[in-house]
Amino acid sequence: MKVQEKIAALRKSMSEKGLRAYIVPSADPHQSEYVANCYKRRAFISGFDGSAGTVVVTDELAGLWTDSRYFVQAAQQLAGSGIDLFKQGEPETPEIEEWLGKVLEKGARVGADPMVFSASEFEKLAGKLEGSGIEVVGMESDLVDRVWGAEKPALPEGELRVHPVEFAGREAGDKVASLDKEIKEAGADFHVLCALDEIAWLFNLRGSDVAYNPVFISYAVVGKGKATLYVDPSKVTQDVKQTLGAEIECRPYDQFGTDLEALGKQGAGVWIDPDRCSRWVWERLSSSGATVMQKTGPVPQWKAAKNGAEIAGMKAAHLRDGVAMVKLLHFILKNVAGGELDEMAVVEKARQFRGESGKFIGSSFATISAYGAHGAIVHYAVSPESNVGLEPEGILLIDSGGQYTDGTTDITRTLALGRPSDEQKRAYTAVLKGHLGLTRQLFPWGTDGYQLDVVARAPLWNSGLNYGHGTGHGVGAALCVHEGPFSVSLRKVLHALVAGNILSIEPGFYKEGAYGIRIENLARVVEREDGFLGFETLTLCPYARDLIDSGMLDEIECRQVDAYHARVFEALSGRLEEAERDWLRAQTRPL
Amino acid sequence: MKVQEKIAALRKSMSEKGLRAYIVPSADPHQSEYVANCYKRRAFISGFDGSAGTVVVTDELAGLWTDSRYFVQAAQQLAGSGIDLFKQGEPETPEIEEWLGKVLEKGARVGADPMVFSASEFEKLAGKLEGSGIEVVGMESDLVDRVWGAEKPALPEGELRVHPVEFAGREAGDKVASLDKEIKEAGADFHVLCALDEIAWLFNLRGSDVAYNPVFISYAVVGKGKATLYVDPSKVTQDVKQTLGAEIECRPYDQFGTDLEALGKQGAGVWIDPDRCSRWVWERLSSSGATVMQKTGPVPQWKAAKNGAEIAGMKAAHLRDGVAMVKLLHFILKNVAGGELDEMAVVEKARQFRGESGKFIGSSFATISAYGAHGAIVHYAVSPESNVGLEPEGILLIDSGGQYTDGTTDITRTLALGRPSDEQKRAYTAVLKGHLGLTRQLFPWGTDGYQLDVVARAPLWNSGLNYGHGTGHGVGAALCVHEGPFSVSLRKVLHALVAGNILSIEPGFYKEGAYGIRIENLARVVEREDGFLGFETLTLCPYARDLIDSGMLDEIECRQVDAYHARVFEALSGRLEEAERDWLRAQTRPL
Repeated sequence: MKVQEKIAALRKSMSEKGLRAYIVPSADPHQSEYVANCYKRRAFISGFDGSAGTVVVTDELAGLWTDSRYFVQAAQQLAGSGIDLFKQGEPETPEIEEWLGKVLEKGARVGADPMVFSASEFEKLAGKLEGSGIEVVGMESDLVDRVWGAEKPALPEGELRVHPVEFAGREAGDKVASLDKEIKEAGADFHVLCALDEIAWLFNLRGSDVAYNPVFISYAVVGKGKATLYVDPSKVTQDVKQTLGAEIECRPYDQFGTDLEALGKQGAGVWIDPDRCSRWVWERLSSSGATVMQKTGPVPQWKAAKNGAEIAGMKAAHLRDGVAMVKLLHFILKNVAGGELDEMAVVEKARQFRGESGKFIGSSFATISAYGAHGAIVHYAVSPESNVGLEPEGILLIDSGGQYTDGTTDITRTLALGRPSDEQKRAYTAVLKGHLGLTRQLFPWGTDGYQLDVVARAPLWNSGLNYGHGTGHGVGAALCVHEGPFSVSLRKVLHALVAGNILSIEPGFYKEGAYGIRIENLARVVEREDGFLGFETLTLCPYARDLIDSGMLDEIECRQVDAYHARVFEALSGRLEEAERDWLRAQTRPL
Repeated sequence: MKVQEKIAALRKSMSEKGLRAYIVPSADPHQSEYVANCYKRRAFISGFDGSAGTVVVTDELAGLWTDSRYFVQAAQQLAGSGIDLFKQGEPETPEIEEWLGKVLEKGARVGADPMVFSASEFEKLAGKLEGSGIEVVGMESDLVDRVWGAEKPALPEGELRVHPVEFAGREAGDKVASLDKEIKEAGADFHVLCALDEIAWLFNLRGSDVAYNPVFISYAVVGKGKATLYVDPSKVTQDVKQTLGAEIECRPYDQFGTDLEALGKQGAGVWIDPDRCSRWVWERLSSSGATVMQKTGPVPQWKAAKNGAEIAGMKAAHLRDGVAMVKLLHFILKNVAGGELDEMAVVEKARQFRGESGKFIGSSFATISAYGAHGAIVHYAVSPESNVGLEPEGILLIDSGGQYTDGTTDITRTLALGRPSDEQKRAYTAVLKGHLGLTRQLFPWGTDGYQLDVVARAPLWNSGLNYGHGTGHGVGAALCVHEGPFSVSLRKVLHALVAGNILSIEPGFYKEGAYGIRIENLARVVEREDGFLGFETLTLCPYARDLIDSGMLDEIECRQVDAYHARVFEALSGRLEEAERDWLRAQTRPL
């Protein structure tokens, strides 16, 4: 089926339902960043398979809204589809609601699947369209699925495994009890969880339903002293049952909607997080008589404040990951002159070295291996078509990470494959100054990531440079590589960091058509004796010393690099082959 | 009349109106920071005359809510009044609405003067109390005025003067035309201005109705090609009339309410800024049939982006102010050993030297002259009771500024009157690093003061230090020393800085019971060739070089201090007496 045929079939369904337009976002029923194949409806209907984008189809028009990362890819993939590309962030681009208000008349009805909109998103959409006299109608089932038909992949059946308390630090029952207490204090009877990483964290379980993210398709309801996990019963092994204990019941995933209605009929007070629960959950509860309390849930911040066992697991994973990274960097630099290496080989080698390091499950996201001009494409994903060979010159950017049974890693290193230019060294060193400055920054409780972002950017700004992405994101402990609730970025997320948070520190600089530079370590937030917070770096891998213009570093920065390098050598040298160790010794000698 | 008698009289009025409580905030009908004496109702009814605080009187209880600056003063002034002190910012202190919800029953009515609440404040108050089943009733006239009776001061009758276009840079008629265009584009007929500095800026007029602030009691309505200024007719001289021109009509101040109702009866579309217009304005318009558009007004940001003439005026004022400050610092250091100087003499001398500098109108705020432990009281105001003599030891903090016909200044300098301790030098240098760091910081368009605040704090945080006030505020051009719409502070004011903004850069450190350090310059925001924004310092006065631990400064910081000091000497030396010049030469020699 061609995209044009799919759109025609969708329009037929729309017409039967009396709809003038239909909206297809990227999300799944759990508001995930990465979704299972059966939820890739936007990619199916439009042919555009980037990670972010929303398709809107009217009876006459069709458009895809996506951001600058995907302008080129979307233009290519949409060619001939009849779907127009709307470039988000460009001044002339209308918002979806604005556009619908223009192309539709008053009284028009727009359809949307309430499962793939959060409660707050749906309300915002409906509110904005109400201003143009347009009604948003929540569908009983997704209209795209009718078009997809039998071709649609089934719900994933990935294995469920226990995340041992040795790494989790707390029993699932203990976490559930804390949540139960919190629910009572909030004056509610139950709290509904839809976000897959929250559920995985709460129950000390890990899954394999979604690429790179050790989560499993599920819902959960907690309250009145017990918890129910809605999950495919075939995944619930004896081991899983034992971990959950008697207080945590497992019920089939498809029983969830009916059970929500039962809660409503009881007249229960149900707390949902409107940013993390779907509109569909809100509808089920509201229509059946529940008193719905919409309020940010506590689990994201509990999950983000890692305990001792989680930190120990993350450190152990970073030690092995550091060994793998040093082997990788040494391998590349040793072999680049041979002319046999290309971007894809780097991806493969990264996986291989991580695999050899122990406890490795898989990558924590698609490895970015970007040579030369590719490095300036911030979310470059190498493919057989784009793959280029490496030469002993220019700059290679590698952003990769691993999922291990005890932790999750995410590291970016930028390598000079030949003799770098002075300009490249200045740019690398400016990025390094930002990276070092934020890493050693102390800050009082209450400071948020929107404030701290500036500490990493300030040295770059003072060189007239900047970067278009965030400075840091939360990282789960043996969970998703991106997690909230805080963000260190120019996005106005005013959520304070707390002790135990683990995050990336990754400023960069990108020269279009030439090269990209990014330096990323993970760090945890620690409280000092004087009550201030600071960072402790988890990542163990040397910076690119031949890209450092040490004349640009002050004494404090030089000492900081030397101390970090000494720590890296001390931690890793005993785990390397001799040639690797020699290379690491040279890389980590004082500046 | 004693406070207790006043409260009793107020309760009698409340009872007549069927009110269980009455709220008396600090504001005037123009939401001013500094108010004329006739509006100091909270001070009258409670005896507490700090700049911030709200009194709430119920039929049985009375409370004053104020912040940490005033805990000591409020406790003293409230003693014996029967008014309880509620310390804002302390965890156990309830908000006013919360407290009223507890002490009153459902169905209770609370009175408030709608003139002294902004439209948005009133709505917030009413919304919160609605949750407790309490109704807020807007009074026809302020109940405190009944108690005050004949003793209440009259409306001020300060002189009105023309602010010449030489300093304003644009004719009043030209500004009005821009505003008229903006009103049309917003889809409204009229825009109502209540904020006194916005009106003074718009019409190129200055007044003397309020201490330190060259504003005059007035309202304005602009739209449909003309403007009306509501002001006491006796203030409107021939000169003023000529400046305003034919398109700007003057009408009596007390005609404003009736004219608002006339707009309503015409069915006009009226744009008000809900944070800057009183609830009373909103009521007058809404009840008479106007379509009220509530939206941030454009004047604050126009006023904050200074034009060439305003900047030239500010620079000229800072040159004279710098001469006055150097004379003052030299005078203090020369005479401190004589034992005749005290805090109040410093206030007087600052005024005298500024008066001699030319074009001086008065102070731009109450001079802070704080010696030793007084320096740690951030808003210390010296009085005959608190006044202490200066000794040739310890630290003196002077925060002062002038209103000149061409500009407004605000500067803080911290002086060592004897040999400073190493700890004091370390603290001063940490503050200086923050001050220098923000001063030389470049940043892209779109950056707000909540982000930039961190740049000044980062070096202090890294020394385990901090300060409890903002880093910077906007400063008017020959207008109020505090103005918006941006703020460089920990307050979450996410308003971007733009080229032409003039602001203070004033980090500090305070050691309770010992000393206070603050270093404040004014700077303007300039756009560089590469499109980044940066600061250009306006203030001309040396730092305290005997308080600088130059070992703590890096090369860039040393060069920055030396370059600034060279500029200060170059600018001021020709305008000083020989002894002053010698002192300045010594102060400004390279570190």
